[in-house]
Amino acid sequence: MSSPRFDLLGIGNAIVDVVAAAPDDFLSRHGMRKGGMALIDAATAEAIYAAMPPGMESSGGSVANSCAVAAGLGARVAYLGKVADDTLGAVFAHDIEAAGVHFPTAKLVGGAPTARCLILVSPDGQRTMNTFLGACVEIGPGDVDAALIGDAAITYLEGYLFDPPPAQQAFRAAATAAHAAGRRVALSLSDAFCVDRHRAAFRELVAGHVDILFANESEITSLYEVNSFAEAEDAARADVALAVLTRGEAGSVILRGAERVEVAAAPAKVVDTTGAGDAYAAGFLAGYGAGRPLAECGRIASLAAAEVIGHFGARPQSDLRAMMG
Amino acid sequence: MSSPRFDLLGIGNAIVDVVAAAPDDFLSRHGMRKGGMALIDAATAEAIYAAMPPGMESSGGSVANSCAVAAGLGARVAYLGKVADDTLGAVFAHDIEAAGVHFPTAKLVGGAPTARCLILVSPDGQRTMNTFLGACVEIGPGDVDAALIGDAAITYLEGYLFDPPPAQQAFRAAATAAHAAGRRVALSLSDAFCVDRHRAAFRELVAGHVDILFANESEITSLYEVNSFAEAEDAARADVALAVLTRGEAGSVILRGAERVEVAAAPAKVVDTTGAGDAYAAGFLAGYGAGRPLAECGRIASLAAAEVIGHFGARPQSDLRAMMG
Repeated sequence: MSSPRFDLLGIGNAIVDVVAAAPDDFLSRHGMRKGGMALIDAATAEAIYAAMPPGMESSGGSVANSCAVAAGLGARVAYLGKVADDTLGAVFAHDIEAAGVHFPTAKLVGGAPTARCLILVSPDGQRTMNTFLGACVEIGPGDVDAALIGDAAITYLEGYLFDPPPAQQAFRAAATAAHAAGRRVALSLSDAFCVDRHRAAFRELVAGHVDILFANESEITSLYEVNSFAEAEDAARADVALAVLTRGEAGSVILRGAERVEVAAAPAKVVDTTGAGDAYAAGFLAGYGAGRPLAECGRIASLAAAEVIGHFGARPQSDLRAMMG
Repeated sequence: MSSPRFDLLGIGNAIVDVVAAAPDDFLSRHGMRKGGMALIDAATAEAIYAAMPPGMESSGGSVANSCAVAAGLGARVAYLGKVADDTLGAVFAHDIEAAGVHFPTAKLVGGAPTARCLILVSPDGQRTMNTFLGACVEIGPGDVDAALIGDAAITYLEGYLFDPPPAQQAFRAAATAAHAAGRRVALSLSDAFCVDRHRAAFRELVAGHVDILFANESEITSLYEVNSFAEAEDAARADVALAVLTRGEAGSVILRGAERVEVAAAPAKVVDTTGAGDAYAAGFLAGYGAGRPLAECGRIASLAAAEVIGHFGARPQSDLRAMMG
């Protein structure tokens, strides 16, 4: 097994975010579940956009955010995700490439437009997401380059990618290719309701194909259908070699066999929590790929999350390299 | 003369900003003048965009920014500016309408794309702008609705609008229509180099058609070709009924006949100065339109500028109504 060209290869939904501040009653009036992610069609996207306050557009997508952060921390990163050959697709491609991430996926021509996520940020910093998947639904096994996967130490899969049906095949193909090449597979569960929609498939994937699992408290308790974080810890520990479980302001827990490392959240001024989990995973993976001890990986992860929480938008706005210490 | 439907009607270049953090040596390498605004063609816009760091897209345009802020402060506002019938045009229209601004200008079909401004923010918060005017160059006298102008207490013109040639005619037509209806005309000089490009036309316009003049120190000294702020104050006082001159952190000076009011800058964490002057003008005009004393107008102006300086992007991200006191 030769030394891999990339520390990290992400596969996810390639999305441009439209972020706006909105009071909680806006969410209620439009039937949105605060803190959640809802899938919407093109007509609903038009209607929500027409009603929402002035916005700010920036590249998003959970694992794409992680890739941008990891590259900012010095990791060598590639990303696979489907955008259309349109203005927002050009924005997405520019931003991820400018972040230093290799992005070889062919753009979709003549199909759905680039995916967008309409994000409402509440006064307490919580974000509520409405995703129109657009071109993302066209990613398939043909976009998964086994040679590229074999050339990445870790392939990181986005739970949300279970929503577009052809992507599920791409997902399994990627996990199989990674292990065939002797590489590792990481997965983010993405969202408790996404876990709910695809629980059986997630359970099978986690038990059979995942080496490193990222989840927050509601996602991990949903996956294992348990009522406490402690029970979820036990289940995750039995299922995967390495589980990284986040609890927002309460910090995070890293489990590896008998090891259990608790990490405090880094102090942050909460402006917009969009991308906090993505940045955390990126910081962890950047540290892990660089061979740092688990506690140090958690520290880098918490610092990266704090940077992203401190401003609108899911991608970092400052130089992250100092976080590697 | 009936009571006007709008407190403020802005006319300017309708632009979407692409904002990115960049070190000063990026500016040097690309031949940019720090703090300035350069006009660029489509090919140069492509080249700069390809080279610049990951960005954040949000609606911009100097007077459009002012209109959004003034509406946020409770003023009744309309805006005229030309976007194309494309994705960025839809973003611009959504954002200004969602800010509560009436935006009746017809979109350009089959011509140049919506204007964009590539903005590099230096570590000290100064912004350097590169503007591709696109559809803005198509605004002309036909877009200037005399009835609408007659229905606005103040018509506010953007100095940058002198750059696209057909807009100059629209500019003069608007000033003439406003005065014919017994309304007032305000002007922002926009940029010292813009003044330099069009000094004679600006001098004629200011002396003959402008009631309220906004300028910063470099713009006003460039307009009158003088070497000190004191000389510029004297010249402005002789030229216009009301001059509002800003000096960044040193605050601002308001001149009306024999009156001279000094206003301190509001404390601000400097993140990105993009839109600071626009927000200042908006705060002043919102206060002035509401009949507040000059010192109070200056206070509202400084608070609005401080809000915009505290984050990336030129449009406000918080509720401004409390600033009216």
